[in-house]
Amino acid sequence: MDIEILEGIYDANEKIARENEALLRENGVVAMNLMASPGAGKTSLISATLDQLKDKLSIGVIEGDIASSVDAEKLKSHEIPVVQINTGGACHLDALMIKQALEHIELGALDLLIIENVGNLVCPAEFKLGESFRTMILSVAEGHDKPLKYPLMFSDSDVLVVNKTDLIGMGDFEMAELRDTVTRMNPDIVIFEVSCRTGDGLPAWTDWLYDKVRGSTQQ
Amino acid sequence: MDIEILEGIYDANEKIARENEALLRENGVVAMNLMASPGAGKTSLISATLDQLKDKLSIGVIEGDIASSVDAEKLKSHEIPVVQINTGGACHLDALMIKQALEHIELGALDLLIIENVGNLVCPAEFKLGESFRTMILSVAEGHDKPLKYPLMFSDSDVLVVNKTDLIGMGDFEMAELRDTVTRMNPDIVIFEVSCRTGDGLPAWTDWLYDKVRGSTQQ
Repeated sequence: MDIEILEGIYDANEKIARENEALLRENGVVAMNLMASPGAGKTSLISATLDQLKDKLSIGVIEGDIASSVDAEKLKSHEIPVVQINTGGACHLDALMIKQALEHIELGALDLLIIENVGNLVCPAEFKLGESFRTMILSVAEGHDKPLKYPLMFSDSDVLVVNKTDLIGMGDFEMAELRDTVTRMNPDIVIFEVSCRTGDGLPAWTDWLYDKVRGSTQQ
Repeated sequence: MDIEILEGIYDANEKIARENEALLRENGVVAMNLMASPGAGKTSLISATLDQLKDKLSIGVIEGDIASSVDAEKLKSHEIPVVQINTGGACHLDALMIKQALEHIELGALDLLIIENVGNLVCPAEFKLGESFRTMILSVAEGHDKPLKYPLMFSDSDVLVVNKTDLIGMGDFEMAELRDTVTRMNPDIVIFEVSCRTGDGLPAWTDWLYDKVRGSTQQ
């Protein structure tokens, strides 16, 4: 009985996610669902990405948080459209929340929509939002053993950004072991190694993202 | 309709949690529910705690993970009873999982049961397990702004262990700001600052925990 109800929730979410996807595609918007644990660097990566790409692409952000608008405030200085969703306790964004947020964004004017999900390495992976692709961040401080413990996030993401590479050497983090485990679970995943604090590795990420958006809109 | 069903789930969980609590109390076992984001240092804190206290207290561990037994393996060398729960996708432990795990532990022989929850700063806070008290860990690498963004975990925990203090100065983490925010939300919370890597601050934590267990069992 419980399982049937949960399937119902997932089905309803899937239907709305497909509607969001269609709406975004009609408007030529590439949407990235950005997921990670709390404090892995989602807002920092968005901020660094805006610094590099906001003159070349028209970018909007949806900020998902359980409570507060701390992250939206951090992005204010970039002067781009930011919509804050407060989930009111819920541990992930869902397609209906995104559908409602999209009503507040002028989609025709956008190339790229970045959706910052709630900080959680588990639940967000289960809910499609209508995104074009999924990027997850793992912070070096979290350790290289996380793919085995949180498999869905690592196997369902299109891109893995390993952030805080400036902390390598401060603990026992092994990049080769992480790469090996993740690519065994998800052979097609694209991996970037960056430090949002020092800027290391960011150009490779923003170049890839730019090409992804331009490639999509030229189709 | 959805809300009614969720209330049903919470009520059923609460009932089993009370049964677990009674069973633990009858056996003179103090149970700690340990919660944190992925990679904040739950297993490291357990390991450091066992190093200090396993000759003074009889300790058992329940390891909660979505998948894998990586953490249970890490604790093998301590030669204490460890029960691994794999939630099979679920983002938190619940009281029924603990009830089943308790059947595999000789409770009469234990002073302290440490329950390592799934790595998640959101959902575990909503599910009582029958624990005597709740400890959460925040890693310095996660940032001092997390209480505002994940309020339930910080307001419902009895103890906050701030781990990875050896990383202070590598980013913009402000301990005073964290303490200020957390104590405003939860004036009774007990805060420890530790580095499981260097050992800094651990004696204050293990002394407190020892007194907590001994105080409880002498009542």
